[in-house]
Amino acid sequence: MSASDPGPARPDPPTTDHAFLDSLVADSSAGAFVHVDDRFDDRLLYLTRFFGPDRDHAFVYADGTATLCSPTLFDAQARREFAGDEVRVAGETDAGTPEAAAAEVLGDRGVERVLVLEAARHRTVDRLEREGLTVSTVSVDRFDAARRSKAADEIACHRFVQRATRRGMRRAEAVLADATPDGDALLWEGAPLTTERLRREVNAVLASGGIRDAGNTVIGAGPSCADLHFVGEDAIRPDETVLLDVSPRGPHGYYGDFTRTFVPGEVRDWERDAYEAVDAAYGAALDALAGGAGTPGSEVRGAVESTLAEHGFGTGDVEVGMTHGPGHGIGLSLHEAASYDGTLEAGEVVTVEPGVYDPERGGVRLEDVVVVGEDGVERLGDYPRSIRPRPE
Amino acid sequence: MSASDPGPARPDPPTTDHAFLDSLVADSSAGAFVHVDDRFDDRLLYLTRFFGPDRDHAFVYADGTATLCSPTLFDAQARREFAGDEVRVAGETDAGTPEAAAAEVLGDRGVERVLVLEAARHRTVDRLEREGLTVSTVSVDRFDAARRSKAADEIACHRFVQRATRRGMRRAEAVLADATPDGDALLWEGAPLTTERLRREVNAVLASGGIRDAGNTVIGAGPSCADLHFVGEDAIRPDETVLLDVSPRGPHGYYGDFTRTFVPGEVRDWERDAYEAVDAAYGAALDALAGGAGTPGSEVRGAVESTLAEHGFGTGDVEVGMTHGPGHGIGLSLHEAASYDGTLEAGEVVTVEPGVYDPERGGVRLEDVVVVGEDGVERLGDYPRSIRPRPE
Repeated sequence: MSASDPGPARPDPPTTDHAFLDSLVADSSAGAFVHVDDRFDDRLLYLTRFFGPDRDHAFVYADGTATLCSPTLFDAQARREFAGDEVRVAGETDAGTPEAAAAEVLGDRGVERVLVLEAARHRTVDRLEREGLTVSTVSVDRFDAARRSKAADEIACHRFVQRATRRGMRRAEAVLADATPDGDALLWEGAPLTTERLRREVNAVLASGGIRDAGNTVIGAGPSCADLHFVGEDAIRPDETVLLDVSPRGPHGYYGDFTRTFVPGEVRDWERDAYEAVDAAYGAALDALAGGAGTPGSEVRGAVESTLAEHGFGTGDVEVGMTHGPGHGIGLSLHEAASYDGTLEAGEVVTVEPGVYDPERGGVRLEDVVVVGEDGVERLGDYPRSIRPRPE
Repeated sequence: MSASDPGPARPDPPTTDHAFLDSLVADSSAGAFVHVDDRFDDRLLYLTRFFGPDRDHAFVYADGTATLCSPTLFDAQARREFAGDEVRVAGETDAGTPEAAAAEVLGDRGVERVLVLEAARHRTVDRLEREGLTVSTVSVDRFDAARRSKAADEIACHRFVQRATRRGMRRAEAVLADATPDGDALLWEGAPLTTERLRREVNAVLASGGIRDAGNTVIGAGPSCADLHFVGEDAIRPDETVLLDVSPRGPHGYYGDFTRTFVPGEVRDWERDAYEAVDAAYGAALDALAGGAGTPGSEVRGAVESTLAEHGFGTGDVEVGMTHGPGHGIGLSLHEAASYDGTLEAGEVVTVEPGVYDPERGGVRLEDVVVVGEDGVERLGDYPRSIRPRPE
């Protein structure tokens, strides 16, 4: 891709149906739901679709009406982005805190009992109580159940970001294929290739493709592949595994997650055995998912573990083998409630990511994102699984 | 810069001196300080220097010892990154929650009263109390006072990220200078230039320069310049202001913040008047800061406002003029406690960012970051202030 290629258009912002809050509110005998947090809170983002400031602001849901108490200086953006019914600018009132602004909305609606998340800030509960409100809490599990199954507009966001991850991976492959061994080093464009240099290449392609937050590009080289979240700097050496796990945040906050592993140079026995085991486990996981909704996660987990065992690799608390689970739900958070601990449901978006690691030697992981359908799964994008990096 | 230029090396991770917690703990008659949050919480990051997972984990400070209760699968990274004394892996214990893991550490130290931030999660207070601990809270203002004045290793991080912002801005200028008017549109490489296309160019350069989180590249064009945090898509038109406010997060979490404004094409009267006013206000702000530590923020604010007034622009709740303050503290958070509301102290890092806007027409803002010293301020990097974009 040329840096000037405008690339695919950004998807439209997803909507949020706030009706799921009705039963939460009713079950707690409250009259409203309130959430106060900052732009870094994914649950607030789900409720508002508003990428607000890094200071607290309030969302209020009462009587079927969703209100955003917008901080000052953000009113134009709030009116453009908010997925609810009305925006009140905090500066329009004398309310000094987001909680006081929320209390003002609640006062207008005659509400005296409110529900907040157990993960809400302690001072939010404290301030709401000082405003004369009675506060009860609801578990994040109950709240998060509402966002497990993704709508078409959310899946479009996953599709966009996952496409960008593939373009980044393609760049990484081309760099690895272009690099040449020089003793213990791998030279690229006149200098030793490192995980940091490779990361910059990948992240630049992500940025060119419309990804604003490329902050989660894990790259391991040899032993550091076994360090599951390695984002540091390490020399890339010939004949060792290079593991790239690219999980940027895409438009409207939805994450991608995509892993491939390559060996630049000679493929030795351990690397080949590990790759074949993980590739077989990947296939077994997708076979186990072939029925779609209703598949018990334990079947996927079992398929991965038994396939790895056939190849001589253990799982769990092992020195060499698969030290993590088969995958996780993904959405507005990189790790979401959908899980292989339960049964997969239609609309859930999950990763499939078997891997085996030897902290003395290297690691192999292969990962894709799938959408669970009624009768099967859709893999978001297709990308070869090849241990040898392919030239551009 | 070529995409393959390795660029400057990343700065070393800053350290944290946890001794500031001693007085907070003592003043509350507690025996320890506990903070539980996820990777998106800047105060937890300041305490740990650990870019952990997006699920909660606990920091404990007791008897002068800082402990990180690391989540499972993150132990290798935690031992590499944690800025404190000891890492305990939650999986090594039976503790089911981060709070229970913290309680275990506190039990070992015989502590029964703990201090948490008022901004802590409500369930953290709840769970600690259920572990039999007595919990009191401290204001975030008191906590944040400790991180206002930056050490040399923190300023090195600001310097790195601010250098990257300048390279991104240079790319934006080159694109704008290379674009050609075509009626109401500005054509670049065969297609109409938009804020989104320009943002991708800027963000790709940031990524190439080692910036992983380029998510805050505000670009306004004409009227959308007055929408202070515009990150949407808008056509860039000839003869209108193009405002770029680039505030990515750099290595180890420190932010950059850098704004320039350009007019591609003919510079008309309003744009020239606005630019000259803001440029003069920028100079007046730096003059007011020339004494360094001890400068009352009100003097800077006054210098900006009176200079803009001389040029015919109002400030505050105005339709046309400067609708925001003269700047803000910056650090691990994009907006930090250092402020023009008080007196500037040595080591504080603040933005200087006068601007004027007309929602019908456009907006001009010029922004740099300065470090307050004992006898003056140091501007982090030098970059021309030119209304005409300069070719590459």
